[in-house]
Amino acid sequence: MKLANLVGDRYKERPVECVLESHALMVRGGYIKAVANGIFSSYPILKRITRKIEQIIREEMDAIDGQEVSFPVVMPASLWEESGRYESVGREMARFEDRNETPMVLGMTHEEPAVQLVREYGQTYAKYPFMIYQIQTKFRDEARPRGGLIRTREFVMKDGYSYHTSQEDLDKYYSRAYQAYKNICRRAGIPDIAVVASDSGMMGGDVSHEFMYLTPAGEDSIVICKSCDYSANMEAADCIVVNIPSVTTEPLTKVHTPNYKTIEEVTSFLKLDIKKSCKAVVYQVLYTGKYVVLFTRGDLEACETKITKYLGEDIQPATIDENSGLVAGFLGPAGLTQAQILFDNSLKGTNNLCCGANEIDYHFTGFQIERDYGDVEYFDFSKAFEGGICPKCNETKLTVSRGIEVGNIFQLGDKYTKSMNMRYSDEQGELHHPVMGCYGIGVQRLAASVCEKYHDEKGPIWPISIAPWQIHLCCLRSDDAEAKGFADKLYDDLLKNKIETIYDDRQVSVGVMFSDADLVGVPIRVVVSPRNMKENCCEITTRDKSVNEKIEPDKVMDFIKDLISRLSLLK
Amino acid sequence: MKLANLVGDRYKERPVECVLESHALMVRGGYIKAVANGIFSSYPILKRITRKIEQIIREEMDAIDGQEVSFPVVMPASLWEESGRYESVGREMARFEDRNETPMVLGMTHEEPAVQLVREYGQTYAKYPFMIYQIQTKFRDEARPRGGLIRTREFVMKDGYSYHTSQEDLDKYYSRAYQAYKNICRRAGIPDIAVVASDSGMMGGDVSHEFMYLTPAGEDSIVICKSCDYSANMEAADCIVVNIPSVTTEPLTKVHTPNYKTIEEVTSFLKLDIKKSCKAVVYQVLYTGKYVVLFTRGDLEACETKITKYLGEDIQPATIDENSGLVAGFLGPAGLTQAQILFDNSLKGTNNLCCGANEIDYHFTGFQIERDYGDVEYFDFSKAFEGGICPKCNETKLTVSRGIEVGNIFQLGDKYTKSMNMRYSDEQGELHHPVMGCYGIGVQRLAASVCEKYHDEKGPIWPISIAPWQIHLCCLRSDDAEAKGFADKLYDDLLKNKIETIYDDRQVSVGVMFSDADLVGVPIRVVVSPRNMKENCCEITTRDKSVNEKIEPDKVMDFIKDLISRLSLLK
Repeated sequence: MKLANLVGDRYKERPVECVLESHALMVRGGYIKAVANGIFSSYPILKRITRKIEQIIREEMDAIDGQEVSFPVVMPASLWEESGRYESVGREMARFEDRNETPMVLGMTHEEPAVQLVREYGQTYAKYPFMIYQIQTKFRDEARPRGGLIRTREFVMKDGYSYHTSQEDLDKYYSRAYQAYKNICRRAGIPDIAVVASDSGMMGGDVSHEFMYLTPAGEDSIVICKSCDYSANMEAADCIVVNIPSVTTEPLTKVHTPNYKTIEEVTSFLKLDIKKSCKAVVYQVLYTGKYVVLFTRGDLEACETKITKYLGEDIQPATIDENSGLVAGFLGPAGLTQAQILFDNSLKGTNNLCCGANEIDYHFTGFQIERDYGDVEYFDFSKAFEGGICPKCNETKLTVSRGIEVGNIFQLGDKYTKSMNMRYSDEQGELHHPVMGCYGIGVQRLAASVCEKYHDEKGPIWPISIAPWQIHLCCLRSDDAEAKGFADKLYDDLLKNKIETIYDDRQVSVGVMFSDADLVGVPIRVVVSPRNMKENCCEITTRDKSVNEKIEPDKVMDFIKDLISRLSLLK
Repeated sequence: MKLANLVGDRYKERPVECVLESHALMVRGGYIKAVANGIFSSYPILKRITRKIEQIIREEMDAIDGQEVSFPVVMPASLWEESGRYESVGREMARFEDRNETPMVLGMTHEEPAVQLVREYGQTYAKYPFMIYQIQTKFRDEARPRGGLIRTREFVMKDGYSYHTSQEDLDKYYSRAYQAYKNICRRAGIPDIAVVASDSGMMGGDVSHEFMYLTPAGEDSIVICKSCDYSANMEAADCIVVNIPSVTTEPLTKVHTPNYKTIEEVTSFLKLDIKKSCKAVVYQVLYTGKYVVLFTRGDLEACETKITKYLGEDIQPATIDENSGLVAGFLGPAGLTQAQILFDNSLKGTNNLCCGANEIDYHFTGFQIERDYGDVEYFDFSKAFEGGICPKCNETKLTVSRGIEVGNIFQLGDKYTKSMNMRYSDEQGELHHPVMGCYGIGVQRLAASVCEKYHDEKGPIWPISIAPWQIHLCCLRSDDAEAKGFADKLYDDLLKNKIETIYDDRQVSVGVMFSDADLVGVPIRVVVSPRNMKENCCEITTRDKSVNEKIEPDKVMDFIKDLISRLSLLK
């Protein structure tokens, strides 16, 4: 099509409110328009990109025997009550009443209708395994949408669900899905996607992986071992701590610590190593308000996800008021009865700790848990850290990186088939609940991640596999009859050869024409100008500057075709 | 793919709750599953059909310079407040509050975000005309979903919006869209689509057309002239009545009509032609409850849409209680002060009418409006009727048919650009509001309409353009090595030739195999069996029984290719 007709504006100025480059470039280039916080419309350029991504996803899902279906966006709450998630999922699920006052929800994931769709179909073992998927709009009322298309409230997602009669069969299929996901990322332009073990969160199940594009712009923390192949999302990474107790065990001593409340203040005042402190972190269980106090070594960070998983309840940072009975800033294990108490692994096998005395302006020193408090069970409630011990190879080579979660895959077990009573009869006629896998990938977030990965200050550099067009044809002086005639003819030839082309024949300056082309980010640029005509050539460059050649007119088409196939192979 | 792996069950029994055949067949054939009243999931067969329909729509929209975009499903109420529709649209729009208590709505049509998306882009005349469209899920909380996919609450719709700097330009584009819609219907299998003038309803605007598949199963009434090309939706069809007054004018006389309330009872009791009666039909304005009484000739039906349009307010049939001051069953114009009174054209130029006396058990005879009540304005508030006068050719040749509305196109004028303040500057730098057209078509409803049109008692007969597969290959005895070997090889060859094939190699009876094939409705069936093998042939039939031939194995592929192109040309 002609650029002059392309709906969407392009801007020179970087929008000040954008934190991420992909967000800024998509606003500048006329890809998206915000309709509300975290809700966007797509202009034609972005729509062309996402349709190509959807097609790649479809091909990879079909290649692992997926069958495309569709589930509704709007569902009755009763369906979600079957699985128990109508209660357990929080405010990220949008809810409303229809005209008959029936409670309805907007789908944010579709395990429930996925089970409902095949509950009768899957009644006999002979039908298994099978996988169904959809590419559909979802709404998740995120508290903090960010980064343009990176974290939105409304998004298009491919979600797939597989059904199996054994864990072995699920494992086998899960590996195929894992590979298909790597293929999708590679074909879309992220061959170096990091696959990390993750926590399943509200999805349930044990085994799960996230497909992470590693970038400082990401909002997820990923723990990677430099020595072996271990990698995991921070929320799923084991935190391993080895304490060597001091040789001399000190007695428990109450000390006056006037106004020293934070663990840094107290240890600095007492001249203690922060590792010799027992820090209190206070949470409240959502809805009930019950207090939960985690004690962990002073240098470590509490991991909410691990605590939530242990408790089986959602928590939030506590609001400590006068009625709580908790002495904020001076909390310690001894004598603390107003809360559930958790001990982190990092406090195991140590001594001579300082901790709060549950009394204003007082701490203890010389604290040793078993001696001064009693026997306790230790669990892993802290976050892994840079330089920590790898749970796989035991080397102290952990690094912490940041990344964007592009996709995720989960083994769900029988969580949904059990709660929603989906059963099949085996060869002996006995009834079992099938096990499920589920496989999600965000279409627009993948587009934004690719944009994060490939761009310069002038615009995105789209891989040819998902670029809005393959060729950006510029006629530099459309008032010059020879140049315009040649460019018009080339445009026709390109279309005849089914090569996707955006044609800029506007009477604008070279500067405007090229900066617009940079924002559209098409991989191959063909420039026709009166000067080129005189030299009997066209100028062909790639957006990433790896190719810059002058080609004779009668060789242009072959050169372009060859270049397209070379660029296609690269990805 | 193999039928054995196709997700979805097929049933022999017709579901008793289905009124329409398309609904029954789609349930029996494993096309749809109800998730809630008027909300369905799609199984893979239907998904294949709707994707083909979407592709046809996309091609036709692109052919008239449409550019695909996408708007959100969830939108802030504030956007709809800009146009005034947040208040004016009733309960069919789903509303909820997000986690920040911001009022949100679910899109049921997208004029508002369509204007919001291009409000800046369209600031100068040089950008015009342009058209954007999306194919997106919508939710409309219908009071009475019906007929499976014919009227659902959630549906996928293509909606397009065009923008113009003059009515002439809109007219020109509107004609192209009109033709594109005819193309879509033709290519999907309804070449004989009826295009009728319609009322714009809540969309606003003056000129609009509906694309109607005529079938007794439809819920819309369409008025068609047998003498000329006039056709219109009942709600938009002018009702023309010519009265010839009686020669002798009678005096106004109050008569005792004990318990005779309906117009049929009264006219029969008084031995009058029903055309000599003045019937009262009572409505209430929605929200305010104000009474509106329409007087119309006794033989005609009131048209709510025409009254609503006249009033500019939504109405509903009245509940007449004791406080209303209205004497139900005996309402007449004279002395009626508790309601707004409307007079239908059909009461113009007549005399000697009977009408209510606003007194229990009394009517008047000899009523003549101007003489006994006063001068009034008459408007068209009644429905056209079978045998009525055509507004175009004046012949009494009107017929009333029923149809399913597959698509609709509207000229919106500047209703939305004005209320939402979208303006462009013309060549002189003066500011104007552009005029818009909008173009909608329901994807699943089109699929269901095609199924209504083409089916027999055994299943749908899909046109090849939208059929889930082109070939249904049956191997009648997959335990027979020769037949199985041949069928397997043919399946491979078909796939290599990129011919979409569903392959049934299950060890089931011929009866099951053929009745399943009938429900899947693929246009071309190829049967391989041991008996055929002995006769050195395959049996090739079409689902519509127009072709039934035995073809030698080495000629099968050519025959199939030829048959596919012949069937494709037909549509």
